[in-house]
Amino acid sequence: MPFDLVPGATIGILGGGQLGRMLALAAAKLGLKTHVYAEDPESPAFDVASMRTIAPYEDEMALTEFAGTVELVTYEFENVPSRTASILSAACLVRPSPETLAVCQDRLAEKEFLAAASIKTAPYMKVDDAGALARAVAQIGRPSILKTRRFGYDGKGQVLLREGADLAVTFRTLGGTPAILEAVVPFAKEISVVAARGPDNAFAAYDICENIHENHILKSTRAPARLPKEIAAEAVRLTRVIVDALDYSGVIAVEMFVVGEADGRGDARIELCVNEIAPRVHNSGHWTLDGAVTSQFEQHIRAIAGWPLGAPNRLGAQEGEHVEMENLIGEDVLAWAKILGEPGACLHLYGKAEARPGRKMGHVTRIVPSPIL
Amino acid sequence: MPFDLVPGATIGILGGGQLGRMLALAAAKLGLKTHVYAEDPESPAFDVASMRTIAPYEDEMALTEFAGTVELVTYEFENVPSRTASILSAACLVRPSPETLAVCQDRLAEKEFLAAASIKTAPYMKVDDAGALARAVAQIGRPSILKTRRFGYDGKGQVLLREGADLAVTFRTLGGTPAILEAVVPFAKEISVVAARGPDNAFAAYDICENIHENHILKSTRAPARLPKEIAAEAVRLTRVIVDALDYSGVIAVEMFVVGEADGRGDARIELCVNEIAPRVHNSGHWTLDGAVTSQFEQHIRAIAGWPLGAPNRLGAQEGEHVEMENLIGEDVLAWAKILGEPGACLHLYGKAEARPGRKMGHVTRIVPSPIL
Repeated sequence: MPFDLVPGATIGILGGGQLGRMLALAAAKLGLKTHVYAEDPESPAFDVASMRTIAPYEDEMALTEFAGTVELVTYEFENVPSRTASILSAACLVRPSPETLAVCQDRLAEKEFLAAASIKTAPYMKVDDAGALARAVAQIGRPSILKTRRFGYDGKGQVLLREGADLAVTFRTLGGTPAILEAVVPFAKEISVVAARGPDNAFAAYDICENIHENHILKSTRAPARLPKEIAAEAVRLTRVIVDALDYSGVIAVEMFVVGEADGRGDARIELCVNEIAPRVHNSGHWTLDGAVTSQFEQHIRAIAGWPLGAPNRLGAQEGEHVEMENLIGEDVLAWAKILGEPGACLHLYGKAEARPGRKMGHVTRIVPSPIL
Repeated sequence: MPFDLVPGATIGILGGGQLGRMLALAAAKLGLKTHVYAEDPESPAFDVASMRTIAPYEDEMALTEFAGTVELVTYEFENVPSRTASILSAACLVRPSPETLAVCQDRLAEKEFLAAASIKTAPYMKVDDAGALARAVAQIGRPSILKTRRFGYDGKGQVLLREGADLAVTFRTLGGTPAILEAVVPFAKEISVVAARGPDNAFAAYDICENIHENHILKSTRAPARLPKEIAAEAVRLTRVIVDALDYSGVIAVEMFVVGEADGRGDARIELCVNEIAPRVHNSGHWTLDGAVTSQFEQHIRAIAGWPLGAPNRLGAQEGEHVEMENLIGEDVLAWAKILGEPGACLHLYGKAEARPGRKMGHVTRIVPSPIL
């Protein structure tokens, strides 16, 4: 198979946060250069990139110049404006594709895509105005969640609709923009499948991630998730259906709810319900940096470059072992010195100056039980 | 213990080759910025550094500016001019110290330091001119090796002195600079100890490295070295004596010859003879990137920052497992695509444009037997 990139090539990365930073570090390991394009002059990815562009994502002149310096563009967030994606894809490879972006950056398009692939999601309805919201509530009931179709992350752009809440006020709270109303899924646990697909259709999934959120932000991940084997296999199968339908290239994360009994006995009815698709490396895959043969960041670079995928095998895979990743959010990061002193704890800091509340400052990975104690 | 650096601080790195590059990558993982100072505009470390200075190591104005932007300076090579080290250390911390540099950049000073610490080396004599060379040959015999006192690496700056060679011509071949004559040690194998010491006297050694050289360049390393336990322990003890005597901060590599029977039976007489001290991260420690809990690069950053040392434990440490590192020298690197397709092989490329003969282009690490086959 011909490779799309050779060592020494430059990958453009849209977005300069910690995901862009860890992608740039992985590219460097493989002898590739990176050009990071981001709006914020303080973007942490700039510190490890060969080239930097500070410009808005709508700056067509800057985008054209950027595209002229790179062989391929990828991104760390799915809210890349479609005009941006089309300017870039006219000049160079964009992976994952602009078509994938279009699906994954719009909650309605994503839900419709999943429905077309016969994949179960929470019941939902399109909400374009307060009247539509009233009709959706009549159908879906309460509590339910009103979510903007675009630009949501870490709980932003969504509001829980309880009994008695004024619908018009709620709709205005979210900015009056196109939205969807989703039923609340009574899940037993949240999982994600982090997997990669190459342009040649190669596929590799990591062990399923079991995720704990706090205040809508991922707090910790445990791999492998505690699930009956057949449910884990089904989660991977659904992911494969999704990447094939998208003709996907790169690492993807598919968040799912596990509904029903999930205690491993396997005799009760368990269902998987896809919550969200992230067409990129994902926080729940950070454990792979220290806990897998190939990290999700290297895997993404391999996949978009058209290179063979790396082994996704977990380290710490002896009987009774698992891997834990804990996010350091806001002032959690003040524990850095203590974590450095903890034998076997692998600390990652993102180089962000201010530990603002809710800001992801770093993470720590542990193989449990620690192999070195 | 107070830490000398906090996350967000900037570490200056003298030298922009692959060692500087991998140090910069490790610093970034820990939330530190780097400023790489190197002469060559094509230095591979520039691609992953927050700041770059392209200037000669003797440029006092550039050095002063550089020192003003960093909290601490370290280096990837020991031939830092002493004037350079003293300008820098007047402005900020330099680790390892300028005193250590002075010892390790001069083969004579290094040998005398080792002798003072009662550590065995090859017999040697100081050679300042052709007459001294004749006297040294009379004492040490042939074959022996004439080595310049400074600026030698990968076999450069040394010549094997055989029977019949003209001494005056040989001395001129090496540039007529101060040198030493060393006896040839009939070694059974070459090993190195890669270890770290913190400013608080913390110490951590990796498993002993067993090294194979080709054309004076490291070709491969195997960890752990096949040695009787008591010899391995003695190698670590000697390293500890060395770092304590130097009041060392950082990662160090001590190359040693194993003389005598080294087949593990332990009944023959085995001696260790120190060949060279590298006051820095070292090629024979590259396996730690994929084969140890903490890489030598992260360990060096931790040590010079005054942070707790990380666990040096080997991965792939089940019964019968070991780690192998193979250098990709010159056109070896053309095998990159094949290596990418090898399950479990961890490929590192240094981002160098030209695969010149003898040039270190990358390396590959394998845990043997592969845990994923």
